[in-house]
Amino acid sequence: MDCGDLLGLRGLLEPRGVAVVGASSNLESISGRPLKLLMRYRYQGGIYPVNPNRESIGGLRCYRDLLEVDGPVDVALVAVRANLVPQVIRQCSQRGIGFAVVFSSGFAEGGDQALQEEVIREAEAGGVRVLGPNCQGLVNLAKGIPLSFSASLDTDRFTGGSPGGIAYVSQSGAFGFASFACASDMGARFRYVVTTGNQGDLDTVEVSRALLEDPEVRMLMMYLEGVRDSERLVELLKAARGKGVPVGILKAGRSASGSEAAKSHTASVAGDQRVWRAVLEQHGAILLEDLEDISSLGLMCGAPRPRGSRVGIVTTSGGAGIMMADLCSERGLAVPKLNPNAAERISRVIPPFGSPVNPVDVTAQVINDPLGLKECLEAVRDSGDVDMISVVISMITGEAGLKTAQQVAEFAKTCDMPLLCSWLIDQEHGGEFIELLRENHVPVLRSLRQSAWTLKALCDSSSSLDLGSSGSLAPFRVPEGLMGGVLTEHEAKGVLKAAGVPVTREELAVTLEDALRSAERIGYPVALKVMSREIPHKTDAGVVALGVRGAEELKEAYRTVMARALEVPGAKIEGVLVQEMVKGLECIVGVKRDPVFGPVVAFGLGGVFVEVLGDLAIRKAPVFVDEALEMVDSIKASPLLGRFRGRGALDKRALAEAISAISRLALDERVLELDVNPLFVMEEGKGVVCGDALINLGE
Amino acid sequence: MDCGDLLGLRGLLEPRGVAVVGASSNLESISGRPLKLLMRYRYQGGIYPVNPNRESIGGLRCYRDLLEVDGPVDVALVAVRANLVPQVIRQCSQRGIGFAVVFSSGFAEGGDQALQEEVIREAEAGGVRVLGPNCQGLVNLAKGIPLSFSASLDTDRFTGGSPGGIAYVSQSGAFGFASFACASDMGARFRYVVTTGNQGDLDTVEVSRALLEDPEVRMLMMYLEGVRDSERLVELLKAARGKGVPVGILKAGRSASGSEAAKSHTASVAGDQRVWRAVLEQHGAILLEDLEDISSLGLMCGAPRPRGSRVGIVTTSGGAGIMMADLCSERGLAVPKLNPNAAERISRVIPPFGSPVNPVDVTAQVINDPLGLKECLEAVRDSGDVDMISVVISMITGEAGLKTAQQVAEFAKTCDMPLLCSWLIDQEHGGEFIELLRENHVPVLRSLRQSAWTLKALCDSSSSLDLGSSGSLAPFRVPEGLMGGVLTEHEAKGVLKAAGVPVTREELAVTLEDALRSAERIGYPVALKVMSREIPHKTDAGVVALGVRGAEELKEAYRTVMARALEVPGAKIEGVLVQEMVKGLECIVGVKRDPVFGPVVAFGLGGVFVEVLGDLAIRKAPVFVDEALEMVDSIKASPLLGRFRGRGALDKRALAEAISAISRLALDERVLELDVNPLFVMEEGKGVVCGDALINLGE
Repeated sequence: MDCGDLLGLRGLLEPRGVAVVGASSNLESISGRPLKLLMRYRYQGGIYPVNPNRESIGGLRCYRDLLEVDGPVDVALVAVRANLVPQVIRQCSQRGIGFAVVFSSGFAEGGDQALQEEVIREAEAGGVRVLGPNCQGLVNLAKGIPLSFSASLDTDRFTGGSPGGIAYVSQSGAFGFASFACASDMGARFRYVVTTGNQGDLDTVEVSRALLEDPEVRMLMMYLEGVRDSERLVELLKAARGKGVPVGILKAGRSASGSEAAKSHTASVAGDQRVWRAVLEQHGAILLEDLEDISSLGLMCGAPRPRGSRVGIVTTSGGAGIMMADLCSERGLAVPKLNPNAAERISRVIPPFGSPVNPVDVTAQVINDPLGLKECLEAVRDSGDVDMISVVISMITGEAGLKTAQQVAEFAKTCDMPLLCSWLIDQEHGGEFIELLRENHVPVLRSLRQSAWTLKALCDSSSSLDLGSSGSLAPFRVPEGLMGGVLTEHEAKGVLKAAGVPVTREELAVTLEDALRSAERIGYPVALKVMSREIPHKTDAGVVALGVRGAEELKEAYRTVMARALEVPGAKIEGVLVQEMVKGLECIVGVKRDPVFGPVVAFGLGGVFVEVLGDLAIRKAPVFVDEALEMVDSIKASPLLGRFRGRGALDKRALAEAISAISRLALDERVLELDVNPLFVMEEGKGVVCGDALINLGE
Repeated sequence: MDCGDLLGLRGLLEPRGVAVVGASSNLESISGRPLKLLMRYRYQGGIYPVNPNRESIGGLRCYRDLLEVDGPVDVALVAVRANLVPQVIRQCSQRGIGFAVVFSSGFAEGGDQALQEEVIREAEAGGVRVLGPNCQGLVNLAKGIPLSFSASLDTDRFTGGSPGGIAYVSQSGAFGFASFACASDMGARFRYVVTTGNQGDLDTVEVSRALLEDPEVRMLMMYLEGVRDSERLVELLKAARGKGVPVGILKAGRSASGSEAAKSHTASVAGDQRVWRAVLEQHGAILLEDLEDISSLGLMCGAPRPRGSRVGIVTTSGGAGIMMADLCSERGLAVPKLNPNAAERISRVIPPFGSPVNPVDVTAQVINDPLGLKECLEAVRDSGDVDMISVVISMITGEAGLKTAQQVAEFAKTCDMPLLCSWLIDQEHGGEFIELLRENHVPVLRSLRQSAWTLKALCDSSSSLDLGSSGSLAPFRVPEGLMGGVLTEHEAKGVLKAAGVPVTREELAVTLEDALRSAERIGYPVALKVMSREIPHKTDAGVVALGVRGAEELKEAYRTVMARALEVPGAKIEGVLVQEMVKGLECIVGVKRDPVFGPVVAFGLGGVFVEVLGDLAIRKAPVFVDEALEMVDSIKASPLLGRFRGRGALDKRALAEAISAISRLALDERVLELDVNPLFVMEEGKGVVCGDALINLGE
């Protein structure tokens, strides 16, 4: 298999030779174990321990320093004291070693940012790429190359057999390899595990992007505490989507206490968690939160893509079947009844006290007729009513258990949809059956909740692969000539109108006579609002009059609002905005610049929905109209946009177009903040109108 | 240990002799395994196989029928064809056998309700209590007595050692024993497992109530598909609370597909799931939804009660510590920083790149100085800053792993708060350490999410034990003399007023002159509403006038609403209600009769909150004022009842008193339905007022 130069990282992932700098003769220690592992995995390249105090370690000749090493070397594993690392990097450069994997701790994570910067400076100057520092290295299981001290690799289980298709990249070394070990125990089969630690140079995103170049990688999982460049993360997610590779991401540091800990752990900035979640989901990533998720999603690596969200449940325990139906339904998966033909086919092999619909309860009778199970599974598969199959087996033991496992394994070979087996049994009675299933690459879990989660994750990931927005949306530039700072409402609406967002009919009047004429043109009732950059909070300042019904009222109102405006010290008054009065459902569309992801757009309903309930949909800008429609449908209050209390459905399409237009405006770096509040939404066909808006262009 | 007669079930749980009716000579079959198990567990009472076709089975003399059996027998295990069961029950009665455990299937669950009723009739007539039919029996692990065919018991693990304190009662036999087996694998230690199947006679509630009489039972877990008598369930929960025994309940059949399956599985009616959840939580039960929950909660059986919700996290992996902090925080647990003294004590033993606050990251350095871990654990325990301790260990292996396990086990003995260990390691490298911890009764899980869930469940359960409403609330009776059916608003408010709920000032006028005088007394503005039992939907019928500001307007409005009322065919008009106009936050308090739990009270905010967002708090009536306050605080929109947009906090106390009063009214069986909508809530000290109400007293 040739996969190019893996975007320049081939040398790191498949080195011709490996030096271990600071190699210890204690092969169980952190600086000894890398040697032990290379030998245990029978690494075919050269292995070069570097330790000036030893002649040889583990039968290998020891070198005084890297310069003394003969033969081709692509990677130096560095396990020396932190303050010695810069010098080692320099030697890598002199020796032409392209990659340094730095295990040593005591850099940015312990407060010594300067030392880390020194290392990176040396590396950049010398053309050396660095993994770490403060990482646990990596393993390439496709080629059987361990470049790590992790005890999880100190086993024979990974040296035989065929490697799997999971690429796993973790910022945390300890968690990365521990979760890898636990997931492997559950039967997940990995291809690469790479830990990036402090990410002085190589980060999870760059490494993941390179691994995606290997066509045998069928699933990508990442543990992140933060990212340096969110654009590259988004590009990575798009690339994975383009290749049809599902991506699971565990973003740690979501809570206040967690994010503070993350800062000291790998010196990461956590960012706004709602934005993280929104952006990852927007780009089709599966959100993980526990090593259980890594295990169970990993088990489905290479499974067929589900064509929909309908689950067929086949069980030997009525109770467990009901639970699984509950857990699937509660996550939005369907558990439809089977059609009469399928039910009839099943009825022929199950006892009358079983159930042939869905969940299909074959009962513990399967103990006596174990061939019935396979027949039932086939009937469910062929029914045309389901997209995924969940097999839930209880305490079926002994001979019957073995036959059950064999049948499920055999069925799995012919199953063209995702299949997940949940076997509720203890190790003593069922360990061998679960082992048999795993050997046959049938995913098995014990937890029903985890099973339901896994099917849902697969299903979401599959439908997001279908979505993948193609094309791009160009930024809309704020027209030239506008002064910086917070625009007046009239200026802001001018920008929005130019960007394609409908705004209220309005005219800026500089005299009372102007205002009267404007009101005639617009038609009463009107609103009057004094425009001044120095009065951004117009209502608080009392310079707004609403529902002005005629010329007399207007004169009165004009005088009142102007008088109040003139009381504001230093306010330069541009005029009075005469504006039509509009009715509709009040929505809010906002833009802010997230410290991690840049411009993001938020949508919600006015009133208490955003303020009290936090009922918001967030996306990274730009947002296509289809995505904006999804945003609109995703808020909890979305039923209010449909037919409601006697009025017709509202104009969601126009709303989505406005959100999309605003998102393009958000791409202009000048726009620091933008709030359209309210955006009135009218009935279908009648569009939307921006009622008020605030734009901050910065200084 | 003497625990009385276990409410009459001692004979079932500790029989002097056991007959196995329909015993098979195939000791691996359903009807043979009960014998095998009794012998394997060295059951000390008499064992009597009944099978007319055999002389002996497994070395035991076989009997033709029950009548032939000599010696004392308390339990007959029944494994014959369904249609033979009534006759066996008759023989039990004749023979004076108090209990029949019926394994046989083919009764209500398969549609043959009549046969099941026959069995129960025979049993009642003959003084025999029945477990099942369609159950898998029970096991008393305290005395080592298996009365079951479950393969989960076919092991030596339960015959030695000390039994635990968990009583587990499951309607589903297959799921019950499967989850018991899996939980035992995780280290949970059970005392009783009882499965009730179709619950023809004994049900989960009665059995659980009896097991609570055993003072060694320290935790109760139940798997329910439905209950026959919800009052007894509530009594059970109160009894458990009184004894300080936490109760975990897995209610299956929550979803539409699950509840339909439950109906056919054990013939249970599922009921409204929101009410189920609310009532269980109201009475302090921990809601379970997976066998993982049974395992992990079971591990905490006998743990000290946490005094609060603060978690101290001690970890060898920064990444895993961050995740645990996230998972705890997201569930509402606190992860507070440790005080400087504690942090200082920890700093002395961890390396500088660790973290001494919380999560405490001792780093993998613990490999080199494994005594540091115990010191850190003690510092966290003694800090005064936490109520529970979570130890999160990554891939610590070999000698260091062993020492780590030993230290945690030793620390556990001195730990006066709940301690839960999460060790992220595979079986090959860590199996022995986890085993060591389990032998020392230290709870160990792999999943961090499950660990966080478990701590939260413990914490909730503990605080609910503190709450336990004492005393009782008497029903409030609807005053005599009211005709049945849907009352008019004025009648309904009369009832509410009598029950102690403030209502609007209002008078029923029968002439225009009356109405004018009433309005003078009440003070303008007023509302006019025509009262007629035949016009329950007043606004739709146009017989309401709001905000009437003076005598002239009143005359006009009076004529309008009366004219409209007179157009309603057959409407008997009682008069026009003249009512003060009130302003306040509009809430809704409703009462309905749940098919399972009887009268329940629901509270939510008016407008779209209940209708669109389903933002409701539900409790079984009656509700104490303190509980009502909890209801008020539990809805998502509750911030609206606090200080908001310039106005002061609202009168929650008065609101809670009104909810409590309404809940007492709900106890009158005549009240089929009651809706107070709106209930206006004013600022603190200004109370609440019922603006409109509907009461249906039925026919």
